[in-house]
Amino acid sequence: MSTALKIGEGRIHVPALSRGVRTVRVALAGCGTVGGELVRILHHAGDEIRQRHGLRFELARVLVAHAGRPRPDELDRALLTTEVDAFLAAAAEADVVVEAIGGLDPALRIARTALGAGRRLVTANKALVAAHGPELVALARRSGGRLDFESAAAGGIPVVRALREPLSLTGIHSVRGILNGTTNYVLSRIEDGWSFPDALADAQARGFAEADPSRDLSGEDAADKLRILAWLAFGVPPARLEIRRRGLGDDAERLVRTARALDGAVRIVAEAARTAEGVTASVEPVLVAAASDLARTRDELNLVVLDSRWNGRIALGGPGAGGGPTASALLGDMVRSAKRQRLPAPSAAPAIPDRRAHGWAVGVDRSRGAQDTLGRTLERAGINNQRMAWTRDAVAARTEPVPWARVSLAVRALEAQGLTPAVLRVDQ
Amino acid sequence: MSTALKIGEGRIHVPALSRGVRTVRVALAGCGTVGGELVRILHHAGDEIRQRHGLRFELARVLVAHAGRPRPDELDRALLTTEVDAFLAAAAEADVVVEAIGGLDPALRIARTALGAGRRLVTANKALVAAHGPELVALARRSGGRLDFESAAAGGIPVVRALREPLSLTGIHSVRGILNGTTNYVLSRIEDGWSFPDALADAQARGFAEADPSRDLSGEDAADKLRILAWLAFGVPPARLEIRRRGLGDDAERLVRTARALDGAVRIVAEAARTAEGVTASVEPVLVAAASDLARTRDELNLVVLDSRWNGRIALGGPGAGGGPTASALLGDMVRSAKRQRLPAPSAAPAIPDRRAHGWAVGVDRSRGAQDTLGRTLERAGINNQRMAWTRDAVAARTEPVPWARVSLAVRALEAQGLTPAVLRVDQ
Repeated sequence: MSTALKIGEGRIHVPALSRGVRTVRVALAGCGTVGGELVRILHHAGDEIRQRHGLRFELARVLVAHAGRPRPDELDRALLTTEVDAFLAAAAEADVVVEAIGGLDPALRIARTALGAGRRLVTANKALVAAHGPELVALARRSGGRLDFESAAAGGIPVVRALREPLSLTGIHSVRGILNGTTNYVLSRIEDGWSFPDALADAQARGFAEADPSRDLSGEDAADKLRILAWLAFGVPPARLEIRRRGLGDDAERLVRTARALDGAVRIVAEAARTAEGVTASVEPVLVAAASDLARTRDELNLVVLDSRWNGRIALGGPGAGGGPTASALLGDMVRSAKRQRLPAPSAAPAIPDRRAHGWAVGVDRSRGAQDTLGRTLERAGINNQRMAWTRDAVAARTEPVPWARVSLAVRALEAQGLTPAVLRVDQ
Repeated sequence: MSTALKIGEGRIHVPALSRGVRTVRVALAGCGTVGGELVRILHHAGDEIRQRHGLRFELARVLVAHAGRPRPDELDRALLTTEVDAFLAAAAEADVVVEAIGGLDPALRIARTALGAGRRLVTANKALVAAHGPELVALARRSGGRLDFESAAAGGIPVVRALREPLSLTGIHSVRGILNGTTNYVLSRIEDGWSFPDALADAQARGFAEADPSRDLSGEDAADKLRILAWLAFGVPPARLEIRRRGLGDDAERLVRTARALDGAVRIVAEAARTAEGVTASVEPVLVAAASDLARTRDELNLVVLDSRWNGRIALGGPGAGGGPTASALLGDMVRSAKRQRLPAPSAAPAIPDRRAHGWAVGVDRSRGAQDTLGRTLERAGINNQRMAWTRDAVAARTEPVPWARVSLAVRALEAQGLTPAVLRVDQ
């Protein structure tokens, strides 16, 4: 018996597991952008999770604020409740409680109740962790519960994990970066010539900004994330961090003009740094060089740069928010929380030689007739050139996508004619 | 009583711990670039590790191949041995065995003996994990030992951790990137106009290439790392991955010329991708766009890009090799192995407002007299301009480094004169 595992576009047939599969009951608070995406992932990646981790996540109860809102098709409507007390009763029986509501009420009550009862809590709630992280961790320790919040600081970028484990001990100098996708998207559009109101409306239309974007624009959202990262990097209790904070407002276009006059770009940079006296922090508009990694981080993307004494500078970039990445990080915490995941089970997918078609760049030294020979040889091998180019010392052809086997035949034919070809795959 | 904790340039006085500190005995195999740096970190970061993790690492025995080679000043010479059997006897008593030798002999014997005896083994050895990873993991499972290898795939970049835990379960499409610093350094120098032999000699002089660089140049080093990453991402046993492998040789300059003729750059890209039929892999010269993240990864730096169904595209960049980053990653594994590290202890460093001096960019709309007013107001506030610039619609000043308090006074003075200033911190 085998199971069809849908991965991206393709399907991989995997042998059924003989090992037992453990069921993990999940109480989910929140079924909006993040919670809804988690429901979809649990449904569509269920086979893969069972196969690789021996776990089957089963939704036991789903708390929502409004019963009538649209929900994912994959959700069993019978699990929905709008009553916090009913949800907490189900949570007391669940193996893991997932909080994807945001804000403090009723998230704080859910967190205290679940952790106080020794439950495992996984949360994406940055405001909650920034305001009450140490209290909740202490509560989990006393009760035998557990708190995970990988998704709270930068969505799908694994920076919380990086700071919690390997890096936290080796002299971090600073943590800095772009932690808010909304303001970064707005700045990117203003750079493209849009007005601030139009840029903000577009961010809202695309789902990068909330209906009320004030916590994004004011820098409070980035400040919450910075509190969490500084806590992990330096041990400063998050509520105690002193953050000089300025965000984006009516002056957004003027900031962009000012930066452009000085040949740079504006980014809202969140930074916590260790100095001789203590840990300082800021969230503010920063003038960055046009060619810098910060300036090149555009649209809704995030970037976190960790600078440390022994490890040098590490940059982690990717989608910092959004349903899929945040839900994916929540799921990572859920697996980790349910099980000490060690190493993956052997793959269902076999390792195969790469027979895919790629574009190829074939170059030879420039010489009389080299271009003709190159073109003719590729043509005889049945490979069309997309482009032929030459410089003072090189002639190069860029081919249509063909498998390596065909290019390697053409390469041997070129060598037989006395040429020495250089071959590069063309990055897609 | 307090301890002076040296962090970067400054010193922070931290209160002595009243909690107990646990001693962890370490048997270290190898004391070259990586092992020697680990000895130095354990010495210089010892206070910080005790403070944050309650652990004191104590070297019990250090295996080296040659007794006479120079070693770090911080190493007690009495711990050295050149006898593998004597080392294994000490390892049997140690809490954690660290293997930083490289190659298979005697690394494989050490790994099998330590794991077979139920010890915790931490290794930076990519060849060992690529060839024998699943066997060693199975051995550790049977004996109650434990294997960690964060540092084996990309030095200080936390990609092994990212793949082992949060991401491994959510439909990874591909893992790709620059995994070998030597070839990347050589390519960067050739781009700067150096010859291949000169570029390679320079890489060797700077310690980025071994005396025998053949495993780097041939792509075998990157292939070993790719085997580990593909194992974690897709579950394919590392020895079974089928890698189309071409590295850098005498054709290196021709590759660069070919790429330049086609307006791009060459990078040696390691890639494993999931297709409908199975997992394919390659390590080869790739033509990348000049503005791409791959082309912008220069010198000895590494970059890993993970593309996944739910999480989007995540890029992790930093030093992929070298003594400090690799030793730092080893230390992370050692702490993790010694202790289920949860969250950092409260910080010794207080949170303080940022009173540091920064450069600032102050911009106002262009109008008659705006430039004069801006310049004069900054001057009266005692702030020197480093640069004044203007475009069609903006006038901007870039200031010398001053604290925020002084700039905010000047901003208020500008507002009092009817101007609306935009203020950016200048990125250092």
